[in-house]
Amino acid sequence: MNEPTELAAYAETLGRQARQASLVLARSGGRQRTDALLRMAGRIRAATPHLLAANRKDLDAAAENKLTAAMIDRLRLDEGRVNRIAAAVEEVAAQPDPVGEVLRGYVRPNGLRIEKVRVPIGVVAIIYEARPNVTSDAAALCLKSGNACILRGGKESFHTNLAIGDAIAEALTASGLDPSTVQIVRTTDRALVPALLKLNQYIDVVIPRGGESLIHAVVRESTIPVIKHYTGNCHVYVHEQADYAMAEAIVLNAKCQRPGVCNAAETILFDARVARSFLPKIGRKLLEAGCEIRGCERTCELLPEARLATEDDWYTEYLDLIVAMRVVDGLEAAIDHINTYGSHHTDAIVTNQIQAAETFVKAVDSASVMVNASTRFSDGGEYGLGAEIGISTDKLHARGPMGAADLCTYKYVVTGSGHVRT
Amino acid sequence: MNEPTELAAYAETLGRQARQASLVLARSGGRQRTDALLRMAGRIRAATPHLLAANRKDLDAAAENKLTAAMIDRLRLDEGRVNRIAAAVEEVAAQPDPVGEVLRGYVRPNGLRIEKVRVPIGVVAIIYEARPNVTSDAAALCLKSGNACILRGGKESFHTNLAIGDAIAEALTASGLDPSTVQIVRTTDRALVPALLKLNQYIDVVIPRGGESLIHAVVRESTIPVIKHYTGNCHVYVHEQADYAMAEAIVLNAKCQRPGVCNAAETILFDARVARSFLPKIGRKLLEAGCEIRGCERTCELLPEARLATEDDWYTEYLDLIVAMRVVDGLEAAIDHINTYGSHHTDAIVTNQIQAAETFVKAVDSASVMVNASTRFSDGGEYGLGAEIGISTDKLHARGPMGAADLCTYKYVVTGSGHVRT
Repeated sequence: MNEPTELAAYAETLGRQARQASLVLARSGGRQRTDALLRMAGRIRAATPHLLAANRKDLDAAAENKLTAAMIDRLRLDEGRVNRIAAAVEEVAAQPDPVGEVLRGYVRPNGLRIEKVRVPIGVVAIIYEARPNVTSDAAALCLKSGNACILRGGKESFHTNLAIGDAIAEALTASGLDPSTVQIVRTTDRALVPALLKLNQYIDVVIPRGGESLIHAVVRESTIPVIKHYTGNCHVYVHEQADYAMAEAIVLNAKCQRPGVCNAAETILFDARVARSFLPKIGRKLLEAGCEIRGCERTCELLPEARLATEDDWYTEYLDLIVAMRVVDGLEAAIDHINTYGSHHTDAIVTNQIQAAETFVKAVDSASVMVNASTRFSDGGEYGLGAEIGISTDKLHARGPMGAADLCTYKYVVTGSGHVRT
Repeated sequence: MNEPTELAAYAETLGRQARQASLVLARSGGRQRTDALLRMAGRIRAATPHLLAANRKDLDAAAENKLTAAMIDRLRLDEGRVNRIAAAVEEVAAQPDPVGEVLRGYVRPNGLRIEKVRVPIGVVAIIYEARPNVTSDAAALCLKSGNACILRGGKESFHTNLAIGDAIAEALTASGLDPSTVQIVRTTDRALVPALLKLNQYIDVVIPRGGESLIHAVVRESTIPVIKHYTGNCHVYVHEQADYAMAEAIVLNAKCQRPGVCNAAETILFDARVARSFLPKIGRKLLEAGCEIRGCERTCELLPEARLATEDDWYTEYLDLIVAMRVVDGLEAAIDHINTYGSHHTDAIVTNQIQAAETFVKAVDSASVMVNASTRFSDGGEYGLGAEIGISTDKLHARGPMGAADLCTYKYVVTGSGHVRT
């Protein structure tokens, strides 16, 4: 399939089938969707040999294309990983059903009954990279929330994704649902993506998951609304009235516990009043943990092992054992720094003072604001949302960790007894 | 100001100032915002002679530019209208404060306290046409919800809008708020709009209000998310088990009470089992009310006064005393028609049968679904949301009538006592 007209027709078919499936799904019950999810998990486990064979093809291609060891590792399935993929689907099945919840319900003075009811969005397209478990996670969250989905994974995991898709389709059919509820794009042709991203009549929302360049490309091409999951340039601000032990524990955890993820801290701000006593000690702990430190001038004076930071450092999401450090003159300067250089993902204050915490919480314009807790908690699982489709850095529709309920919209159901407007 | 570089610099200034004002506003209390709203109303009333003088300039230009009588009427202010504009601002002031509401709050097993708190979106740009009251309504709703706004009205009401803006700025200053909280675009140069619509770093959301072509133009140009208020192609479906009197009252109200608005009905679907007895009678009532009827073949057989409808009629929002009529074979056919031709705005069923109502409510993919009530109730005021910024036909972020709370997003506030992730 490489004729442009064939590709456009294929995109159109994907969209039309997804819309059709979404209309059926909107009328399905929660029990039927849960049943389909449990069957999905079962079919994935039962298909282990088939999945590993498909994965083998992708691994062979990866070796041939000289992918890095880290990329190959992320791609590789084994029995344990297949089992964990199935278990994750079972966890989604066990979550409460978000669909049908009455978000507000009341009776107007004229007797009209108004209910704002959570309903599926409709059709979700997910454009993602690398790891095959995204295929089953995304499919499970969309099905849980009553949405049809179109999944376009990276070409590196193409055969694995198709094999997972086959197992899912069997489960859907066995549960009496349309197998087009979850469609895996059956081509690696890159030209399909722009065609998909213009199917406004069929697709309601696009969620790109992957590196920043993928997300930017999707935003550029899409005429459909996109929920974006950009970078996490997260901060920890150590206030002048912070407990030393707590500050040290939170800074080290936020930076070092898993530096390669979006909710890891990238810049530590020290209040000038505690910088002399706290900064060198915490700095050395970070150095011991293997961190490279890039600091402002005052940081470098207090900690000569630090290298002088540039303006760019304040904007950077290192995703690595590198940390930026800055001495700030008070709470307002910290808030300014975070609102100026941050990515509005997750930012923390360490303080014993209630007014400082309140001001920080109100003034920092981020999806998650932490008081005396590590930024690493910014996560759907930690917030009790169950599996997450990602962490939105947008302000519209969904912000921060997104669970199944965030893949829903609402409708107003208005019930009268012959009401007419006068 | 017509050099492109000057325009770009002006757009940039508007955006930067709005962002700055939004950061101040995020820290304001509800009482301060209410105070500013009440002062706004007071200043608007006090400025009546000034507003009427400015309005005179617009009316003179309108006469010169040969605007229609209807357009001139919409543009015209008098003392009564100025007073109503001020009263509308007072009504917004009297609404409950949407900001700060804890939408969900709970404690995780590890003791971490999670609160999902409603907060302002930040900066809202509103691109609109004609009526000067949109200027004060939009400013009031944005201020109520803690958002800074940039208002770009039509060139027809340019002087009136600026005069309203001056009154608002005085009120903001008197209340200790940044006057840039509400900025009226001080040029009629059309080239400013595309420049505004690309200021993603400053503006969080764009809301166009006006005709379909304006909305399409904004969507095409904007790189900022747009909440759209497209057409209302609304339906009333008369089920086979409907009460005749109720059906007649609802159909007539939905179509004729105010045909020029988006929640008026455009197509009436009659179930084949009641078409023979209901359709001619209701049809004649509509004809008596001055409606032109465009019907399917079966409609024309039952009601020879009807003209044969074309496929295009099913898609059309007449906004006029014209109505399309179709005989459908049962509930499923009605649902299919609505989901295929409708604009997902507001659709009603008239029925006495509980199962039909439930199926209709679940299957019709519209922002508002009515049971035994006129589509005309789809409105922020009727839903008890207070003044509305519009009726969203989007599924993301806000759907249906949008009040002040729909101009908000949320943030997660996470409070620990030194929590680190293991």
